[in-house]
Amino acid sequence: MSRWTFYSAPGTCALATHIALHEAGAEFDLVKLDFSAGQQQSAEYLRINPKGRVPALATELGVLTETPALLAFVAQRFPEAGLAPLDDPFAFARMQELTSYLASTAHVAHAHKRRGARWADDPAAHEAMRAKVPQAMTACAAYLESQIAGPWVAGDRYSVADSYLYTVGSWLEGDGVDMAQFPKLTAYLARVGSRPAVQRARAEAS
Amino acid sequence: MSRWTFYSAPGTCALATHIALHEAGAEFDLVKLDFSAGQQQSAEYLRINPKGRVPALATELGVLTETPALLAFVAQRFPEAGLAPLDDPFAFARMQELTSYLASTAHVAHAHKRRGARWADDPAAHEAMRAKVPQAMTACAAYLESQIAGPWVAGDRYSVADSYLYTVGSWLEGDGVDMAQFPKLTAYLARVGSRPAVQRARAEAS
Repeated sequence: MSRWTFYSAPGTCALATHIALHEAGAEFDLVKLDFSAGQQQSAEYLRINPKGRVPALATELGVLTETPALLAFVAQRFPEAGLAPLDDPFAFARMQELTSYLASTAHVAHAHKRRGARWADDPAAHEAMRAKVPQAMTACAAYLESQIAGPWVAGDRYSVADSYLYTVGSWLEGDGVDMAQFPKLTAYLARVGSRPAVQRARAEAS
Repeated sequence: MSRWTFYSAPGTCALATHIALHEAGAEFDLVKLDFSAGQQQSAEYLRINPKGRVPALATELGVLTETPALLAFVAQRFPEAGLAPLDDPFAFARMQELTSYLASTAHVAHAHKRRGARWADDPAAHEAMRAKVPQAMTACAAYLESQIAGPWVAGDRYSVADSYLYTVGSWLEGDGVDMAQFPKLTAYLARVGSRPAVQRARAEAS
């Protein structure tokens, strides 16, 4: 296949797919966008990803976006890496239940800290949103703590969902969550964080 | 397999999975929750789905939640129904790119009309969120209009993503979107709405 290009930005959910690509042993070029300079809204990038967001993965067949879709794609394109239960629809659905929750509930709750302009114009409303982030993210942390079934979230088998849970989990403390309440999650984040693919992606993404 | 039970509520995104189950020819019992009576927060239901939301699908292996995960699961469990490109990782990712967008962007934008209490406590903030829903949903409609590649969203082949796009698409007018701006989407919604599985699910869900 032609070489892929992965579009990322520091401190974003793109880290999840970045980790998954390294876990899979994928070859790709990394392009880091500078959000503080608004590069995600540049004409050049909007031609690649009209959503003006990261992650985006330019493949030989076209550009793909949305973390849950990308994670399943990486797992399916590199089946030998064993990054998802590809032959077990229920286990695959369980994995996707988590990635979908992370995208549509946990990431959304987190985004109300800095991205309130997506959902209201009034600065006072943005402040009210920011004020609720610790509570909303603590509820997410409690749910995520309940989902960790073993060394990895699904039990004994590491999957692309772990790269995403690690990414969102690393936001919790900064969002005002008291991590002392969540010892399983805290130990889990340290365990995932020690994987070479995670360390490599973090170093490249920062 | 043992008979499944599908938990739904009128007017919710559960319609997407409900349609998919009928498109697949799945046998299941339907349980409709009365959100106005708070049934989704009853002790009985929280034992089934601790998230207190719909959809939930009780299978012989356990309960599954989250629409994108459920849609892929239905397609994978009923491969003979041809409801997803199961042997083409890129096309499957393209389908999931849409279902993930619907869950984490379009549904979230819609939820700011009535579910603002998830993200702020101040009633004035809820009002500011409601005020922006028409604008945010119009942006979603423009994106969705651009994604319709044929009679169905992916082109010639109907998939579970169509049941979800139909469900979210049916909210647009009520969210203040001027549908006259989106003729492809309008025609598409009528086309999906004429399918027998859609009509059956709508009749059962209402």
